[in-house]
Amino acid sequence: MINSKLPKIWYGGDYNPEQWEQEIWREDERMFKLAGIDVATINVFSWALNQPSEHDYDFAWLDEQMDRLHQSGTYVCLATSTGAHPAWMARQYPDVRRVDKNGHKRQFGGRHNSCPNSPTYRKYSAAIAGKLAERYKDHPALLIWHVSNEYGGMCYCENCAAEFRVWLQKKYGTLEALNKAWNTRFWGHTFYDWEEIVPPSDLSEEWGHNRTNFQGISLDYRRFMSNSILDCYRLEYDAIKQHTPDIPVTTNLMGFYPELDYFEWAKYLDVVSWDNYPSLDTPVSFTAMTHDLMRGLKSGKPFMLMEQTPSQQNWQPYNSLKRPGVMRLWSYQAVARGADTVLFFQLRRSVGACEKYHGAVIEHVGHENTRVFRECAELGRELQQLGDTLLDARSQAKVGIVYDWENSWATDLTSGPSVALDYVKEVHKFYHALFDLNIQTDMIGVEEDFSKYDLVIAPVMYMVKAGFADKVERFTEAGGTFVTTFFSGIVNENDIVTLGGYPGELRKVLGIWAEEIDALFPDQRNEIVMKGQWGGLKGSYECGLLCDLVHAEGAEVLAEYGQDFYRGMPVLTRNKFGKGQAYYVASSPDESFMKGFLANLCEEAGIQPLLAAPEGVETAERSKDGRSFLFVLNHNAEDSELELGGNKFKELLSDAELAGTTTIPGRGVLILERL
Amino acid sequence: MINSKLPKIWYGGDYNPEQWEQEIWREDERMFKLAGIDVATINVFSWALNQPSEHDYDFAWLDEQMDRLHQSGTYVCLATSTGAHPAWMARQYPDVRRVDKNGHKRQFGGRHNSCPNSPTYRKYSAAIAGKLAERYKDHPALLIWHVSNEYGGMCYCENCAAEFRVWLQKKYGTLEALNKAWNTRFWGHTFYDWEEIVPPSDLSEEWGHNRTNFQGISLDYRRFMSNSILDCYRLEYDAIKQHTPDIPVTTNLMGFYPELDYFEWAKYLDVVSWDNYPSLDTPVSFTAMTHDLMRGLKSGKPFMLMEQTPSQQNWQPYNSLKRPGVMRLWSYQAVARGADTVLFFQLRRSVGACEKYHGAVIEHVGHENTRVFRECAELGRELQQLGDTLLDARSQAKVGIVYDWENSWATDLTSGPSVALDYVKEVHKFYHALFDLNIQTDMIGVEEDFSKYDLVIAPVMYMVKAGFADKVERFTEAGGTFVTTFFSGIVNENDIVTLGGYPGELRKVLGIWAEEIDALFPDQRNEIVMKGQWGGLKGSYECGLLCDLVHAEGAEVLAEYGQDFYRGMPVLTRNKFGKGQAYYVASSPDESFMKGFLANLCEEAGIQPLLAAPEGVETAERSKDGRSFLFVLNHNAEDSELELGGNKFKELLSDAELAGTTTIPGRGVLILERL
Amino acid sequence: MINSKLPKIWYGGDYNPEQWEQEIWREDERMFKLAGIDVATINVFSWALNQPSEHDYDFAWLDEQMDRLHQSGTYVCLATSTGAHPAWMARQYPDVRRVDKNGHKRQFGGRHNSCPNSPTYRKYSAAIAGKLAERYKDHPALLIWHVSNEYGGMCYCENCAAEFRVWLQKKYGTLEALNKAWNTRFWGHTFYDWEEIVPPSDLSEEWGHNRTNFQGISLDYRRFMSNSILDCYRLEYDAIKQHTPDIPVTTNLMGFYPELDYFEWAKYLDVVSWDNYPSLDTPVSFTAMTHDLMRGLKSGKPFMLMEQTPSQQNWQPYNSLKRPGVMRLWSYQAVARGADTVLFFQLRRSVGACEKYHGAVIEHVGHENTRVFRECAELGRELQQLGDTLLDARSQAKVGIVYDWENSWATDLTSGPSVALDYVKEVHKFYHALFDLNIQTDMIGVEEDFSKYDLVIAPVMYMVKAGFADKVERFTEAGGTFVTTFFSGIVNENDIVTLGGYPGELRKVLGIWAEEIDALFPDQRNEIVMKGQWGGLKGSYECGLLCDLVHAEGAEVLAEYGQDFYRGMPVLTRNKFGKGQAYYVASSPDESFMKGFLANLCEEAGIQPLLAAPEGVETAERSKDGRSFLFVLNHNAEDSELELGGNKFKELLSDAELAGTTTIPGRGVLILERL
Repeated sequence: MINSKLPKIWYGGDYNPEQWEQEIWREDERMFKLAGIDVATINVFSWALNQPSEHDYDFAWLDEQMDRLHQSGTYVCLATSTGAHPAWMARQYPDVRRVDKNGHKRQFGGRHNSCPNSPTYRKYSAAIAGKLAERYKDHPALLIWHVSNEYGGMCYCENCAAEFRVWLQKKYGTLEALNKAWNTRFWGHTFYDWEEIVPPSDLSEEWGHNRTNFQGISLDYRRFMSNSILDCYRLEYDAIKQHTPDIPVTTNLMGFYPELDYFEWAKYLDVVSWDNYPSLDTPVSFTAMTHDLMRGLKSGKPFMLMEQTPSQQNWQPYNSLKRPGVMRLWSYQAVARGADTVLFFQLRRSVGACEKYHGAVIEHVGHENTRVFRECAELGRELQQLGDTLLDARSQAKVGIVYDWENSWATDLTSGPSVALDYVKEVHKFYHALFDLNIQTDMIGVEEDFSKYDLVIAPVMYMVKAGFADKVERFTEAGGTFVTTFFSGIVNENDIVTLGGYPGELRKVLGIWAEEIDALFPDQRNEIVMKGQWGGLKGSYECGLLCDLVHAEGAEVLAEYGQDFYRGMPVLTRNKFGKGQAYYVASSPDESFMKGFLANLCEEAGIQPLLAAPEGVETAERSKDGRSFLFVLNHNAEDSELELGGNKFKELLSDAELAGTTTIPGRGVLILERL
Repeated sequence: MINSKLPKIWYGGDYNPEQWEQEIWREDERMFKLAGIDVATINVFSWALNQPSEHDYDFAWLDEQMDRLHQSGTYVCLATSTGAHPAWMARQYPDVRRVDKNGHKRQFGGRHNSCPNSPTYRKYSAAIAGKLAERYKDHPALLIWHVSNEYGGMCYCENCAAEFRVWLQKKYGTLEALNKAWNTRFWGHTFYDWEEIVPPSDLSEEWGHNRTNFQGISLDYRRFMSNSILDCYRLEYDAIKQHTPDIPVTTNLMGFYPELDYFEWAKYLDVVSWDNYPSLDTPVSFTAMTHDLMRGLKSGKPFMLMEQTPSQQNWQPYNSLKRPGVMRLWSYQAVARGADTVLFFQLRRSVGACEKYHGAVIEHVGHENTRVFRECAELGRELQQLGDTLLDARSQAKVGIVYDWENSWATDLTSGPSVALDYVKEVHKFYHALFDLNIQTDMIGVEEDFSKYDLVIAPVMYMVKAGFADKVERFTEAGGTFVTTFFSGIVNENDIVTLGGYPGELRKVLGIWAEEIDALFPDQRNEIVMKGQWGGLKGSYECGLLCDLVHAEGAEVLAEYGQDFYRGMPVLTRNKFGKGQAYYVASSPDESFMKGFLANLCEEAGIQPLLAAPEGVETAERSKDGRSFLFVLNHNAEDSELELGGNKFKELLSDAELAGTTTIPGRGVLILERL
Repeated sequence: MINSKLPKIWYGGDYNPEQWEQEIWREDERMFKLAGIDVATINVFSWALNQPSEHDYDFAWLDEQMDRLHQSGTYVCLATSTGAHPAWMARQYPDVRRVDKNGHKRQFGGRHNSCPNSPTYRKYSAAIAGKLAERYKDHPALLIWHVSNEYGGMCYCENCAAEFRVWLQKKYGTLEALNKAWNTRFWGHTFYDWEEIVPPSDLSEEWGHNRTNFQGISLDYRRFMSNSILDCYRLEYDAIKQHTPDIPVTTNLMGFYPELDYFEWAKYLDVVSWDNYPSLDTPVSFTAMTHDLMRGLKSGKPFMLMEQTPSQQNWQPYNSLKRPGVMRLWSYQAVARGADTVLFFQLRRSVGACEKYHGAVIEHVGHENTRVFRECAELGRELQQLGDTLLDARSQAKVGIVYDWENSWATDLTSGPSVALDYVKEVHKFYHALFDLNIQTDMIGVEEDFSKYDLVIAPVMYMVKAGFADKVERFTEAGGTFVTTFFSGIVNENDIVTLGGYPGELRKVLGIWAEEIDALFPDQRNEIVMKGQWGGLKGSYECGLLCDLVHAEGAEVLAEYGQDFYRGMPVLTRNKFGKGQAYYVASSPDESFMKGFLANLCEEAGIQPLLAAPEGVETAERSKDGRSFLFVLNHNAEDSELELGGNKFKELLSDAELAGTTTIPGRGVLILERL
């Protein structure tokens, strides 16, 4: 349980009483109660208020809010207010302001605006976190710490450059090692002095979006930046823990946010929390995958849904309203996949600045007679009713899909063979097929223990870091099924090619050699022609993007290309390895192949679907203390018929007993406890 | 009359004799005469010639030109030459050079290049204007002053930053007031010292095109810039008026140019003038609307058409020729809508630099035997023949459409609900329907006297400034018909939301509450379903962009949404208010609805079309001393049949008497005086 | 012969042994031998290795490589290593780093990164070239010098600005002359002091891609930059020639690379060499045209194919593999059009940095059992077999197409009439028609001797420099056929319009006057209506882009416009002039017209096709010492039937005798010697 003070699914969200007059606070209290809201995240952006000048701190307003919220029965997720620095600091200490990729020194403005290597920022952000912790350590409303806000971005200032050099010295020891790791003899870039190294910006090695001349320095700068920002988080974390060692600390992550290696970050979070803002065309399976990834950051521990909008967003091009029922449906989707909180941005809409058209529980009209408020209040009632039943329940998956941030950087930064290669998209193709098949899946990092799984899939495992290939071999040898694809095993952690034939270190376990890689135009397709029937797969399917020209070296050829000069070469292979087997998918297949392929893999591995749910109906399961809770989420606007098989269930929201066939209403939710 | 020295429609345009040798001047004189040209705008870009170094002035060349033009019978529109600073000034006084949104200090080059808060620019631009006025105050050729040229653009230099702070102190008095107006507690942006405030550039609060974190500061910076540039104009204006208090002064505006608040500017122009450069796909109704806006800047006073091209432009992607007759047709369109001059850019094409492929009365070939020259000469003859008949005639409209520059900034800067919202486009939808219906319309500012009108339309009146709602209520109460749309009444002049329910201060007069605002994708549509028949409106129509979810609170519901979860909610309402009524259009309708809707409104208000003209034939009327002149402009390439009803007319260009049915040739023009 | 040391078509390419360990060198030697590789280009990017600090030089590694390659039978194309400066130099001497168009000082990174006016760069690049020449002047492996690499780009630093002013003073003498040449009275840009002039960057006169306010300064800056970079080349050239006066020196050009005037450069190259990287959608006729242009740079002398990829590229969006046979086919295309070398980038793929996915003779797998290596080895065998047969053979063309870099700058920089005008594309239209007709064609500069040709075509000859019109008149008078198009003869070398009627100085020879120029939208078309039949031309054809409104003044009208208000005006004219005739094509015709038009021109001029080859089969001929070699290249994937007419040939690659009808395999090559 995140904090046993509040043993239920926390409900509430971001709240900025400092933007409002006292009479509004009274209304807030009344309406929070109406809506069943019990947690408010406060102090997210109040640094300027808390520290009006370098040597002054003033927490009187915060004292008042903490007390007031406590008195009205609301717990506090207390932020440290360092998500944006004060204007006075920007003026007085220019080092807090970032320098962008084009070398422009930023002026005061925006948020996520502090240089992570600014001595001023590091000093004062840690200082205020410590002061807050000291002040509120015994406050009864305090539930959890929320450090800063949505960390991210890059800086290219002189401080960052200097720290980068220190970081590189620590990592490589000698310039010889660095020159080798970055292959600097290419284009005569040999460094003879650490001071010659400058960050890879649009003024040096990079241009456009993730284009670089030297992948080595660009990868290292991303690592360095992710680490530098993590250091800022850790400085606050440590300052807090000195005073409140037992209160959990988190910071809100952003799903597949590309610039921070969240697996590394998660080691320093007491609980993972994240902000879920699906774009308007985001498939529900993508949101599900992201929840699973957030759960995977700490090997399956429950996480917090820190932010979502109750109705609409403001920063999309077209901010359509969440249709009736969708907010509730997506809230339960989070819970189904491991969230133990349902929190909104925001509880009350602000009157000015850029987020005033972002949805809120309390809209500008100010009263409770709105569709949005009614839906929020209804959900609040349900969450109260659920109590602690679901808290800390875990998912049990036998399939793991590997995701690796460093691999995402490497595939983005690579020059050739195709700009259309999108690592996350290829990962999602596999996830989506499993989602459609109602197979419970974990999203895991490269350091995860594979032995928990029967099937491990590592799409586009381009960068194979030290030890990974061994691990795959051991997993497969022991009876596991391993799957990877085209453009895998190519480079090591420095983006240096593993010589001797692709897929490099994975070649042995896969039993193949990929001689060449053809890149297809967006409108080009090749064919996957099955050699006979395999489960539901037979005949031919389309594929595209990249086509590895593969030679089987011991592997069995399950399918061949149907087109072009490499027609007849293998496109799908299976290699027996020890007690297990390793599959290679040499091109990027279309959806129909994927579904058949993964159905076969699961069937071979004896992995069962959670339910035979109709199209558009999502399933996910959490279990705890021998009880198991099957979530059924109808993403269709219309009712769907559900076949429950021979099982008997209690539906937790209605307390009804269900068996046989039942109807789930459009955008409806069932939480079925197996009886 | 602009200047009674020349009591006819002025004819001529921009002229740069300083780029040519003496023998060419003789040719110019001969050809001006052939073409009936009587006005030349000179000295527009001659600052470097007039002031070759800081302390030297040399007007000898200009003396010669003034005298020469006078002797050859051409009057002068005398520019002050400050539209581009001299190279020596840019080098000697870097403060005259602007800093762009990305913080780049500009080098010498281009035009519209002077920082409006440069002490050097202000000093020397006013100085040269004064010197010119003193020198030519009694020159017989002098007709009007033309200050600078096409003012515009933005600057972000240190001088501007400092002056912005002064401007803010004057406006807000205290930082408390400013912090409140900008809602700076959002994201912790509280200012404790005026010096902490920096202009909202791409290095601080803004990015891309009109994206901002803080609407308050971004709005104020646009106001400040418009004012700063206006101050530059006014410094020249004042310097001139010291010497020639009775000679009118203007500067050439640019229609809907977004960055300057022309209603504010117009207060300081003796006569409005503007440059008409329709893009290749500009609807003729858009040009008409722009003429009407320029006329509206000074409440209906005639204006000057300062520039248009006789044939083609050079800065469009594809610069097609004006087809035969089009230059004449569009010239009369200007006159029909209030212009008392027809001036070209340019009289003679230059031989070098970026405007040499811009059309001119005298082309590079240099003689009069060209299609373009012949058309110009023909028009020159007609304008001479018209004499002073039309001068100072006024339009009589009973419909006013409100346009407000600050509202255009606010709708551009807003974050959400839809990037597709284009204020000018929504305004044009209403104008276009009236144009098609041949209803004479005024384009008016928010400060205009509404009592002149029977129908006032304020589309997307997002920003409702102090006093506006009262004014609307008084107008409606007294029997007027008021119309507004979705996304109106939302914020005050600081972009702070009016709490308590949209459309805020307009809620009472409209008798509705808009609970939510849905944003539609570009390919999404909803339906306007009429509740029964109303005039020509019945059945259903398409709408899109935004859909307000409206509750009628006293208003009558004329139509409902036909789709989506808000099907059945009001989309068109009418509220009786005093003796009048107020309409609310909750979404953006397609054209067919608009035409029917405005026909109904006009019929109810007893507003008559000027004529029942066929498709593609424009009508507009000016009246003077009891005489009324109806312009009929055939924008079709083919002849059109015209039904004149029971009226009898004299056609001014042919002197023919017309009645019953007549034919107007393709691209032809009739000026019909009612008999 | 480029260098008689190696009297055959050189075969090999770029090679970077400094990136590899010694055991790899042994493998390289073995595999070079297998592939018939006899030339390696080394030291291209080794400046940092050769000069590890300002005062240290270390050529030990290079000594070893030179000796080793020599011992293993490989000759060396020795680069000077100055294509990218060392990191220490960038840090120690900031002047070597460029400033970009936005005024950003570059940091260390990339290649082509040195400011051409940097004193440091000039000093040390010449120094190292000299040192290399001195050291290796007598080395038996040394075959040719390769100065720097793919020169290009622009710099806008203070050193460039200062040198630009010096360059301008030398060119114009006085500011009066400069002000006149640039027409600076436009927009009041008169310069009174040389120091007032700043480079035309995005901070001064230019914006976006090739948009400028002043064509004069922008043209001169391009000339200055091309010259400045050429000066850098020449400094190295001179330093080399002091030691090795008899060894040829080149630098690798890039076809139609826009920023350097290669006709000017070619004067200082002992042999032209270039890098051929067709984009994925490049027509084969475009590659052929580029080869012909490279040959034309030195009036027909053979050139070097310095770089091409054996398989795929890395920097295209989608890097598809060269299909089997295509590398060989395109290699022979180069030879057919004048190349005496076939060199690759690269011999061995590097393991890291941005070109590791660029194809190479030796792939990452490292052994010879690859498709790519097998194809390379097969070609190596053929080239050995061909020996010196083709070396120094010349093309004999009676058609010359004029291409001029300054004209390309001028047409790019012009403002109006159409952004769609693409000079190279218009040139290619003519070339493509001749290519399809199997007419041997030369690409020539404006300084070429026209008397060699029967037909000279100068498409879009917008800029007519001093003497050109005279030359055209003399050529035509003497019996030649001259062809030009719309938008020709408009300006002089300073982009100043030739007054008195378009096409200016070409008006007399063409016998026409172009009164106006209409620009068409991309989807608009007009018609070319033939007046009767002329050869294969009759009826009507489509045209677009620009339409000159032409009056015949002595010229015969062969075709008229079929549409719009200028229907019936001439669109194709022929003017008898002396013994010859001059054609004017007033719009841009579609392909079918072009083919018929050029067939007629060739027939009238008695110019014969090389062969009646089927669609997709390219022909080209080289002759030498009375022998003539006809290349037949089948770009189709399928076999084609070839009609050899009455001739008898020996096919050089197979030694077969051919006559009558023969089959050329898909992607096959025949080299036919006439018997």
